[in-house]
Amino acid sequence: MTATIDFYFDFSSPYGFLGSEKVEALAGRHGRTVDWHPILLGVVFRQTGAMPLTEVPLKGAYSRRDFARSAKFHGVEGFRMPSRFPIPTQAAARIVLWTKARDPSRTGAVVHALYGAFFRDDDDISQPDVAAAAAARAGVDRSAARGSIDDPAVKEALKAENERAMAVGVFGSPFTIVDGEPFWGVDRFDQIDRWLATGGW
Amino acid sequence: MTATIDFYFDFSSPYGFLGSEKVEALAGRHGRTVDWHPILLGVVFRQTGAMPLTEVPLKGAYSRRDFARSAKFHGVEGFRMPSRFPIPTQAAARIVLWTKARDPSRTGAVVHALYGAFFRDDDDISQPDVAAAAAARAGVDRSAARGSIDDPAVKEALKAENERAMAVGVFGSPFTIVDGEPFWGVDRFDQIDRWLATGGW
Repeated sequence: MTATIDFYFDFSSPYGFLGSEKVEALAGRHGRTVDWHPILLGVVFRQTGAMPLTEVPLKGAYSRRDFARSAKFHGVEGFRMPSRFPIPTQAAARIVLWTKARDPSRTGAVVHALYGAFFRDDDDISQPDVAAAAAARAGVDRSAARGSIDDPAVKEALKAENERAMAVGVFGSPFTIVDGEPFWGVDRFDQIDRWLATGGW
Repeated sequence: MTATIDFYFDFSSPYGFLGSEKVEALAGRHGRTVDWHPILLGVVFRQTGAMPLTEVPLKGAYSRRDFARSAKFHGVEGFRMPSRFPIPTQAAARIVLWTKARDPSRTGAVVHALYGAFFRDDDDISQPDVAAAAAARAGVDRSAARGSIDDPAVKEALKAENERAMAVGVFGSPFTIVDGEPFWGVDRFDQIDRWLATGGW
C-alpha cells in the first residue's frame, strides 16, 4: 500500500483550491498519494478566534490580490473569485466523504470537480443541487450524491472528520500533514517537497 | 541612484528576522537595494484585530515549530526563540530610524545587529541599554544610539513611519513592497524574485 500524505482543506478556501491543484503532483514526486480531508473551517475558527481573511481590515484587500497573483504564480489556470464568498461548505464536504467511503478511487476527481465549480465556474456549491451536479461531472451518481448531503451517517462522518482534524492541530486551509509533520498553506509546499525528499531536517 | 524595494518589519517578528537575512540578496539579484522600514505591529494589530501568532490557540504551537523549521529551510543559522517573546520594539525601531537619518549606509548592519541580538543571542532588545549595545556592534556610537531612543524627533519619526506603513496597506511582518506591489511574508520571496525578474504577471 502506498504511503499517503494528509491534505486538509475547506471548499471555501482559495489557497485550499490552489493546494488541491498541486498536491497530487507533489505527493507523486515522492511515491505518495493524497488522503483528502474536507473540513469546515468555520467550526475551527470558533476555537481559534480567526475570521475569513477577506473580512479582516487591510488584510482583506491584500488577500484578494494575493489569491489571483498566487494562482498565476503556481500555474493554476482559470481562477476567479466567486461572486458569493465565503460560503458554507457542508454540502461539498459531505459529498467528498460519501465518495471516499463508497468509491475511494474517485475522491480526488470529485474534489477537483467541486473546487473547480466554485473557483473557476462561479457555481455556488453551498447549494446541495449545485454541489451534486458538480460532483456528477466526476462520474458519481448525481441523485445519490444529492442524497448523501442529508444522510445522517455522512453528517456524522463530517463531524468526526472535523474533530479529528482539530485533534491533530489543523487550524487552516490547506493544511498538510506528512508523517506527523504539519504544514500550513500552499506556501509551505516547497518545504513539504524538501521534507519528503530528505525525511526532515 | 539604485532603485529600492521597501521592507517593513517588526523586531519582534520571527518571520521578519528570516526575511531580513534574505532580502538584500533577493534585491541584489535584480540590481536593487533595500529600504528598511521598522514598524510597530502592535499599533497595526489594533486596527486589524490580529494578535501575536504565538498567542492564538492551535496556531501558537504550530508557529513556534514553523519558525525553527523555516529558519533551517531558508538557511538562516543560529535562530532560536527568545525567552521573552513577544517584546515591545520601540527602542530598536528608533535606533534604526536614527541611523537611517544620520548614517544611512549603516542601516542594514544595525538592523542585522539588533535582530541577531534578539533571535540568536536572546538579548532583550526592548531594554534601551541592550538595544544600544547591540547597535554599537554595527559601528554606531553607543551612547548616541541610547540617546536617540528618548529623542522626541525620533519618536515622532517612528510614529510617522508607522502611519505611512498603514496608509500603504502594511498589516504584517515582513511586508515587502516592490514598485507598488505588496507581498506579505518571507514565504512570498519566491514570488518577489519572479516579480523582479519579469516585471509582474
